[in-house]
Amino acid sequence: MSCDFLALAQPGVQKLSPYVPGKPVDELARELGLDPANIVKLASNENPLGPSPKALEAIRAELSELTRYPDGNGFSLKSLLAQRCGVQAQQVTLGNGSNDILELVARAYLAPGLNAVFSEHAFAVYPIATQAVGAQCNIVPARDFGHDLQAMAEAINEQTRVVFIANPNNPTGTWFGPQALAEFLAKVPESVLVVLDEAYIEYAHGSELPDGLDYLDQYPNLLVSRTFSKAYGLAALRVGYGISSAQVADILNRVRQPFNVNSLAQAAACAALDDLEYLAQSRKVNDDGMAQLEAGFRELGLNWIPSKGNFIAVDLARDAGPINQALLSEGVIVRPTANYGMPTYLRVSIGLPEENSRFLAALRKVLDA
Amino acid sequence: MSCDFLALAQPGVQKLSPYVPGKPVDELARELGLDPANIVKLASNENPLGPSPKALEAIRAELSELTRYPDGNGFSLKSLLAQRCGVQAQQVTLGNGSNDILELVARAYLAPGLNAVFSEHAFAVYPIATQAVGAQCNIVPARDFGHDLQAMAEAINEQTRVVFIANPNNPTGTWFGPQALAEFLAKVPESVLVVLDEAYIEYAHGSELPDGLDYLDQYPNLLVSRTFSKAYGLAALRVGYGISSAQVADILNRVRQPFNVNSLAQAAACAALDDLEYLAQSRKVNDDGMAQLEAGFRELGLNWIPSKGNFIAVDLARDAGPINQALLSEGVIVRPTANYGMPTYLRVSIGLPEENSRFLAALRKVLDA
Repeated sequence: MSCDFLALAQPGVQKLSPYVPGKPVDELARELGLDPANIVKLASNENPLGPSPKALEAIRAELSELTRYPDGNGFSLKSLLAQRCGVQAQQVTLGNGSNDILELVARAYLAPGLNAVFSEHAFAVYPIATQAVGAQCNIVPARDFGHDLQAMAEAINEQTRVVFIANPNNPTGTWFGPQALAEFLAKVPESVLVVLDEAYIEYAHGSELPDGLDYLDQYPNLLVSRTFSKAYGLAALRVGYGISSAQVADILNRVRQPFNVNSLAQAAACAALDDLEYLAQSRKVNDDGMAQLEAGFRELGLNWIPSKGNFIAVDLARDAGPINQALLSEGVIVRPTANYGMPTYLRVSIGLPEENSRFLAALRKVLDA
Repeated sequence: MSCDFLALAQPGVQKLSPYVPGKPVDELARELGLDPANIVKLASNENPLGPSPKALEAIRAELSELTRYPDGNGFSLKSLLAQRCGVQAQQVTLGNGSNDILELVARAYLAPGLNAVFSEHAFAVYPIATQAVGAQCNIVPARDFGHDLQAMAEAINEQTRVVFIANPNNPTGTWFGPQALAEFLAKVPESVLVVLDEAYIEYAHGSELPDGLDYLDQYPNLLVSRTFSKAYGLAALRVGYGISSAQVADILNRVRQPFNVNSLAQAAACAALDDLEYLAQSRKVNDDGMAQLEAGFRELGLNWIPSKGNFIAVDLARDAGPINQALLSEGVIVRPTANYGMPTYLRVSIGLPEENSRFLAALRKVLDA
């Protein structure tokens, strides 16, 4: 008889259900015997444009250094981010994706007996990171699928150390404006760290959404997290960042693994920040694709949640599970959202025009079946 | 007045001193105004050969998928590792470097009130990972700079959940044989997870060192961690792995970030596993370089700790700090080991013949100064 290493694990860890990622193309191809080239994946909010040529060039230039450890201090990338964000380099924390930033916060500031406030229908990593350290999830009902910031502020109690808010929110695409953020921040106690997750902010340009960085000076308890996985097109490489007070960044950098961000990611991220053309094109493809999907849903008589991200949640007005399965059989991968408390919805990432068409045609077919 | 976010951090995190990496070449070049091309870095136990051509080819083939998330389940790499290691894929945990594996263990199995046993002069990540979760470091005095396995077994108490042992050990290069490991494992309670860190095992081929994998069937409380950062030459990309019982792997995979290992790392690691020629050459360069450094030390009248790794700790018989500084001024980066309790030593990674010569010449110069 061997020992039970499940029972020996920390209580929070025992209860963890792993994050369910979008099904990889190769996995579906293996399962259904399909040709990967015929599969459309609109499941992980990836950039459909393909890589930035400048990022590719930077990676190729870095390949000769493959046997060397990354710069653990991320000098070049942190300097560039600081410059672009109008902050000091010591306010920057680099992460192995922004997932890493969210987790560093949880590990530094949460523990059994403490809690994190976040919204219903919010990113699955908030509860995972919270539970992994044995803290409580203090979940606030959503309002029209978006954050109810007033209720979230009221949900904060003496044991709250962190609030996770996302703008726009994933998987709903909902957002809040500058005034709502300002009012919320004014209500949050200064000892509670507000993590403003802006993973999709580059798609939401314009004045409707606040720029979280504008609030850092006034609120030292604010951390803005961002990623290179979406509009910058570097999901494969894993690089995200947090901008916060220097003190919070110092703490997160202590918890961070010394070489958490690989060298190619650092080089590619620097190049991507300079590739303004790619960024503009990413937005354009997204705006066009969003309009295309909305028009398609309208034709199909389906409702959707208006979105400022690179994805859109569509309401099938019935259990979405079987429709999702049928779409998979058609070689179309989207994301079911039952585990987000939205069992009648599917979240669809914005693809290239032909990918969107392919998805809409498959959806029509399986809905008619 | 803003809030003190240091005081709000978890107690273990507050006390963390970050890992001190080998100084990057670019950083020294910036500090001293040197040409990076004239700097020799023998500080991070990196593979001096440069990248494996097969790994580079695999990376290039993967570049078109840069905008896609990695396969979070690491299907291909886990399948290949399982095959090579003679285990099932569900016994494999992939890490963002083996550092990640060590941390996953700490986060799953350690907490305040519990402790991890490890040796004096052991890898700095053991205490960091232990302290970060608020657990106690139960440090056992070394014996001739190596692990005193008998004393380590005796140090295990009711609060011990993890023992970290390394074979060979970094930064000392010391090792233990198959019989010593077998006797140790027989003594460890079955509820204590033994993490056998074999980051350097590929350099130590032969029968003098045990292959940790041979003990997995008998000891479900054993986890063997390995890395692609050393003999496989992929330090820049961050990929390591743990092999354990399926149950322990399941727990670690719950704690693991869903996309902890980037796509290029997964592709390159698969290719590197197949590049037997590169691996053989890595060993040959290491064996030759080790002999070269030993001969150099002998000429200089210096003692060293015999090593089975790709590095060697040399005793300067005086405070090594000033010598290290003088070497930096000469454009030679090695690793001081004062923070490992070895203030008179420097740890020198094995380089190419010309790098070893350059180091030895600089050492002679600064010792004579």
